[in-house]
Amino acid sequence: MKTKSILTEMAPYKPGKQIEDVKKEYNLEKIVKLASNENPFGFSEEVKRKLPALLDQLEFYPDGYAREIREAVASFYNVDENQLIFGNGSDEIVQILCRAFLEKGTNTIMATPTFPQYKHNALIEGAEAREIPLTEDGHHDIEAMLQEIDESTRVLWLCSPNNPTGVLLDQETVDDIIERTPEHVLIVMDEAYFEYADTAKRYPSIEAVQQHNNIVVLRTFSKAYGLAGLRIGYGIADARLVAAMEPAREPFNTSVIAQKAAVIALDDQHFLTQTVAETQQNKKDFMKFCDDAGLRYDQSEANFLLIHLPISGDEMFEYLLTKGFIVRSGEALGLPNSIRLTIGSKEDMQSVQYYMKEKLMQEG
Amino acid sequence: MKTKSILTEMAPYKPGKQIEDVKKEYNLEKIVKLASNENPFGFSEEVKRKLPALLDQLEFYPDGYAREIREAVASFYNVDENQLIFGNGSDEIVQILCRAFLEKGTNTIMATPTFPQYKHNALIEGAEAREIPLTEDGHHDIEAMLQEIDESTRVLWLCSPNNPTGVLLDQETVDDIIERTPEHVLIVMDEAYFEYADTAKRYPSIEAVQQHNNIVVLRTFSKAYGLAGLRIGYGIADARLVAAMEPAREPFNTSVIAQKAAVIALDDQHFLTQTVAETQQNKKDFMKFCDDAGLRYDQSEANFLLIHLPISGDEMFEYLLTKGFIVRSGEALGLPNSIRLTIGSKEDMQSVQYYMKEKLMQEG
Repeated sequence: MKTKSILTEMAPYKPGKQIEDVKKEYNLEKIVKLASNENPFGFSEEVKRKLPALLDQLEFYPDGYAREIREAVASFYNVDENQLIFGNGSDEIVQILCRAFLEKGTNTIMATPTFPQYKHNALIEGAEAREIPLTEDGHHDIEAMLQEIDESTRVLWLCSPNNPTGVLLDQETVDDIIERTPEHVLIVMDEAYFEYADTAKRYPSIEAVQQHNNIVVLRTFSKAYGLAGLRIGYGIADARLVAAMEPAREPFNTSVIAQKAAVIALDDQHFLTQTVAETQQNKKDFMKFCDDAGLRYDQSEANFLLIHLPISGDEMFEYLLTKGFIVRSGEALGLPNSIRLTIGSKEDMQSVQYYMKEKLMQEG
Repeated sequence: MKTKSILTEMAPYKPGKQIEDVKKEYNLEKIVKLASNENPFGFSEEVKRKLPALLDQLEFYPDGYAREIREAVASFYNVDENQLIFGNGSDEIVQILCRAFLEKGTNTIMATPTFPQYKHNALIEGAEAREIPLTEDGHHDIEAMLQEIDESTRVLWLCSPNNPTGVLLDQETVDDIIERTPEHVLIVMDEAYFEYADTAKRYPSIEAVQQHNNIVVLRTFSKAYGLAGLRIGYGIADARLVAAMEPAREPFNTSVIAQKAAVIALDDQHFLTQTVAETQQNKKDFMKFCDDAGLRYDQSEANFLLIHLPISGDEMFEYLLTKGFIVRSGEALGLPNSIRLTIGSKEDMQSVQYYMKEKLMQEG
């Protein structure tokens, strides 16, 4: 058998370190995972309280239209129901977009480093991925990205806040991009970390969707809402654009539990506000630690920080692992002397900064 | 923006009738859904009992490797862990296979009618779908299918028991297909309804996987195990074949709840045995009703029957709907004078046959 030739060049999925494995390997009692930008404050108590009573009738297929969560999200943003598409996490919406718009002979433009699934899924569809390096301070290089657009360009990816830097695209820049992007190019604004961004700095992307038919905004319940384990995210766009994407969505792609939990989670904005406030405070404190330690970091509006180190990211990763902290080494992200660190609880952030300092003093 | 041109020819997903909507529309108290081959006996009591305590830590991404359920399934079939790939339902494995093997310039061969997602996903990847009509009595037309194979053929789909006919491929036939299919063609045996088939008639497909590197067997927890709402299925194949497919799988495609529930469900073989026994008995009783009423049906080894009618499937569908029964009209399946009916509980099958008879007498 022959797979698509591009697949033979792709690394098969490598399972990340599981908490239980690390516990055994290093003989540790407690492991703190700061590697996947998950919510250290868990998820809404309302979900915890109500979900156990919603586990009946699992023998039925989910509502493929996802009516309940669709109505809730539409009402939350004041958009039409047919402007929404739901996915098994917003990364599935990335896959759906690639399946719908990309094929051999087309190209797609993105920053590098950014969320790796844009490129991965584009390549699987046979498209050319044009990767434009971030600027020195972690911003999208907009001029260079726009210059890459040609007749065969189908999708322009904007990750804001960007993963792994956390840098938010500013409002003027996004206006400029939308203005200068030809109508045949779809602009995808992946806002998985949107809820963590400073309210005053956020781009009004839903308004933009209402004014332009070539923009898709991606949001998720996996980050600030703390439901990564259930897999549900969504896209917001012009209704005709959503209809065009729909055939590329599997009919029953979100589980009944994910749909129900998301409705409850969306309704509990109190949890969200608290999560965001605590994360922002802990991030601020950690940035002060970095400043004091002379460590440079990118200006993050997300729940993580990309920290530049005088040693390799792998070294710091390995050291922190022995102390019970799983972080993300920058090596795999193309930024070898860095780590990406999820902002955790106050206590955990104090511990991890203690060990980071210890390691840096050993080296320096 | 331009989607792939094939998508413009595809119907966007049409949400099926939801139980609550039908209740309101027809002012009915009870609705029985016999349309999607779901399990009328629900799912394992063990899942019901244990799942509520497993709803913590939803803020963490699922284990992308799905270790627990992987170990359980590997041990259940006595295959290696790396011979398994898990999907958000086995229909996602169909999508993964198409993403991995099909592209422009390739073709794929399937029966018609059969499970529509083979063709749907093949077309999205730009491949040619070669559909070979079933024989008069609902069997795959093997000679015609094998004749369609050429150098550009990548995948041959065998749905056994076939949806929507329920017909099982017999053992000799499958041996013959494997023998005569060139090695460059992947044989997919979709056995979503495997557990319902007569033990003596089942093809030993796991053994075949151990002897041939071009066979993938698909199974699911959505049917006999009754967990359709949670979305989890899997493929079994040669380890190198699985590794080749892995890049086309989204890293976190199965939810943490689905993984945990599947482990419990697999362990409760008592539930499975009961479900299958009751379904087989109810099917037998319903076949007797059909025989007495002079209704022809295909020889089904699944939990549904395709019944040929002297009136249109839509007419019967509409009539049964007013009585509170949702069935599948054959119109959409290319078999206009038929309905596909899931085998339900004894009581519900007695009611539905009462109303079917009523309708046929009105007509006849």
